[in-house]
Amino acid sequence: MSIPQKQHLSLPKILTLGFLIIILIGTLLLSLPIATRGTHTTSVMDAFFTATSATCVTGLTLVSTAFHWTLFGQTVILFLMEIGGLGFMTFTVMLFLFMRRQMKLSTRLLAQESLNLDNLSQLSVIKLILLLSLIIQLVGAGLLLIDFYPRYGWAKGIWFSLFHAVSAFCNAGFDLFGNSLENFTNDPYVLSIMAILIIAGSFGFLVWQDLLLYPKRRRLSLHTKLALGTGTVITLISIVVYLLSENNLQVLSQHVSYGHRLMNTLFMAITPRTAGLTTLPYQHLSLASIAFTMILMFIGGTPGSTAGGVKTTTIGLLTIQSIATLRGKQDATFGHRRFTQDNIFRALTLIFVALTILAAATLILCATQPLPKNDGLQSVTFEVLAAFGTTGISLGLTPHLNVLGKLIIMFLMFIGRVGIYTVMFSILNANRKQPKYRYPEESVLIG
Amino acid sequence: MSIPQKQHLSLPKILTLGFLIIILIGTLLLSLPIATRGTHTTSVMDAFFTATSATCVTGLTLVSTAFHWTLFGQTVILFLMEIGGLGFMTFTVMLFLFMRRQMKLSTRLLAQESLNLDNLSQLSVIKLILLLSLIIQLVGAGLLLIDFYPRYGWAKGIWFSLFHAVSAFCNAGFDLFGNSLENFTNDPYVLSIMAILIIAGSFGFLVWQDLLLYPKRRRLSLHTKLALGTGTVITLISIVVYLLSENNLQVLSQHVSYGHRLMNTLFMAITPRTAGLTTLPYQHLSLASIAFTMILMFIGGTPGSTAGGVKTTTIGLLTIQSIATLRGKQDATFGHRRFTQDNIFRALTLIFVALTILAAATLILCATQPLPKNDGLQSVTFEVLAAFGTTGISLGLTPHLNVLGKLIIMFLMFIGRVGIYTVMFSILNANRKQPKYRYPEESVLIG
Ligand SMILES: [K+]
Ligand SMILES: [K+]
Repeated sequence: MSIPQKQHLSLPKILTLGFLIIILIGTLLLSLPIATRGTHTTSVMDAFFTATSATCVTGLTLVSTAFHWTLFGQTVILFLMEIGGLGFMTFTVMLFLFMRRQMKLSTRLLAQESLNLDNLSQLSVIKLILLLSLIIQLVGAGLLLIDFYPRYGWAKGIWFSLFHAVSAFCNAGFDLFGNSLENFTNDPYVLSIMAILIIAGSFGFLVWQDLLLYPKRRRLSLHTKLALGTGTVITLISIVVYLLSENNLQVLSQHVSYGHRLMNTLFMAITPRTAGLTTLPYQHLSLASIAFTMILMFIGGTPGSTAGGVKTTTIGLLTIQSIATLRGKQDATFGHRRFTQDNIFRALTLIFVALTILAAATLILCATQPLPKNDGLQSVTFEVLAAFGTTGISLGLTPHLNVLGKLIIMFLMFIGRVGIYTVMFSILNANRKQPKYRYPEESVLIG
Repeated sequence: MSIPQKQHLSLPKILTLGFLIIILIGTLLLSLPIATRGTHTTSVMDAFFTATSATCVTGLTLVSTAFHWTLFGQTVILFLMEIGGLGFMTFTVMLFLFMRRQMKLSTRLLAQESLNLDNLSQLSVIKLILLLSLIIQLVGAGLLLIDFYPRYGWAKGIWFSLFHAVSAFCNAGFDLFGNSLENFTNDPYVLSIMAILIIAGSFGFLVWQDLLLYPKRRRLSLHTKLALGTGTVITLISIVVYLLSENNLQVLSQHVSYGHRLMNTLFMAITPRTAGLTTLPYQHLSLASIAFTMILMFIGGTPGSTAGGVKTTTIGLLTIQSIATLRGKQDATFGHRRFTQDNIFRALTLIFVALTILAAATLILCATQPLPKNDGLQSVTFEVLAAFGTTGISLGLTPHLNVLGKLIIMFLMFIGRVGIYTVMFSILNANRKQPKYRYPEESVLIG
């Protein structure tokens, strides 16, 4: 059952180490004097935090991206976002394929599996999708420039267009305005382009491939159907909830018309699941909106995309499976397919492990951080989920974190982006030999 | 595979309806004019809430048990606690046995299973344990009377001893002092007796049986080993966390000595997992203690006991299983046994379903309840978990709930006590016929 360990560095280890190396290079560059405006330099710790946030496409910041960093520093952040967003997107997919190859050895699932995932090893498809990603970002930047040129002139306009197209497509949440997209509440054009870029980036590799090949194949994989289905359902629910909980954003200035408020609500429904660009300060939202945003950040986006969290497919699969279990059905089915036992098992375990890590992180932060006098738990939980979901919206705690707090948030951004399984597999040395004997079975009484 | 549905009322339905009927009878009795002190009567809604809280051994109250109800009303509450705590404890175990009988049909697990659980159908053992429970409560009441007689005289002393012995053993959390056990911070004798009663009640039926039969059998079931093991580990962790997060309860009055503070910390480590009797107001605790208490309330106690929550065995099993999965091991093992796949699967699904219900409840309460200006999310989450864990500690939200809020908290107490699976099975009509065909398998990319 166990294969000889030829490769000393497993793929999970390569991915984890790869991310770490990118972050360390980013830290080095951001620590250079030329990265920081004025005469002082940024501390290594703060550079480390910023590099982690950029590479993990999170967007939590200790210092203002707009005013603290020089053009050089901002360019480093741009490249970290692009590498974190795209460079490793391909890698994750390759990892998935590698794991499936391992599973083949012990399960029968391959024979019945859909045709299309296996073609991914063809480098041509990966190249095509990377090319498409770059084209989408460039077109997005061009469209943004139409609005930004009159506002900022050519030089600043082009730079802002590029930076924010990348930040939106990579769902990174960094901005050069100093207040995210709060200047654009009355600008549905910019919000629409940003929203489209965010959605395009959040689809993820496998979905893009399926969509690109659809005209030829005339069918979608179960993964794509579930990802698009769950994503659509969650977005629709989000729109309804925010419409109700914010009363179509009555919190916005009186100068924002009804239609523009609606556009802002739509944008608000899209951004928390991983993008993190916002058109209003979240501190001003109602408690229900804040609680709902936390749930969305926990869910995150599509796997194999730039998203963090436990992922939409995980939630979709488990919702279907839970309903099936509670109704006493044998199989959890969707789109005329049933999910493999192994798939459901891993999804369920993921939720439990994520929950354990998030609870521990929240507890340690509560015990060790200087917290606001009111709403302490709320700001900690929000921060923890924003990091794990790589969403990067904050209720304001980030700049007040001490060293331990920063390290915990960085760890959460890291596992949110790289994936709990990948990180844990590389730490815990998975895929060791199975023992020859097995203990007898016994069950216990649960819940 | 499917058995003919002879019984139109399944066991889960009987259990769910049984609880409902007890609650309704309690509501009726508490609505009577003789239940309430003074000239006014309690509204049906508030009687309904109190009856639910008592039957589900939770302890959340809209009105002071000590000052609002007459002796008649308090007696009704006493009987509801006893029926809710003990009467249905036996029932839950019978339900478990019934479900296992159903599982036999489709799995092979029975043959390898431990010997002792099957003997439970012998009514003699059930009688023995019920008798033992009553004896423990009477002895506890007697020991309490030694302290209460000098304080309250004979009549009040006996009544208080009885009521609080039942409330502690049933982990119900109701008190007749008006401030829980806050008068007893300097009384380690009473706290010790209460702690022992709480622990004895929280063991649950199967553990008691195993312990009683141990001298004869010389072995414990996997359930008992796991329940005792997890319970001990969680209690030890709780002691350490509360010692650190409260600095050995510096929050208590200066008149409480170091040793007595330690006793209060020990009591504090025992109470949140389901008992709900407290020696200090939880509003005064540090944020870390409050967050940790929420985690403990989510976990709850032993299944088959008076406890709510997702249960210690669920958490113990899943911790062992998650570590095994993350280390790439095939089996999750404990005490030279491996857990059945079905057991793990149901435990994982339980966590996900509980999480979904709790998140939805929190969200609706945030949107609809009149909340304190500060720490709104904290008080809502705490209340939700206190209800689901049938712990009944509150940060003060309960009396401010509107009708919808009361109904939601009552629903949470109900599923916390009766069990998510039991309630859902009876609502969703589980165990229907399986379809003859199965869809082909396919897996999706998750987290
Ligand atoms: K982000
Ligand atoms: K209780």
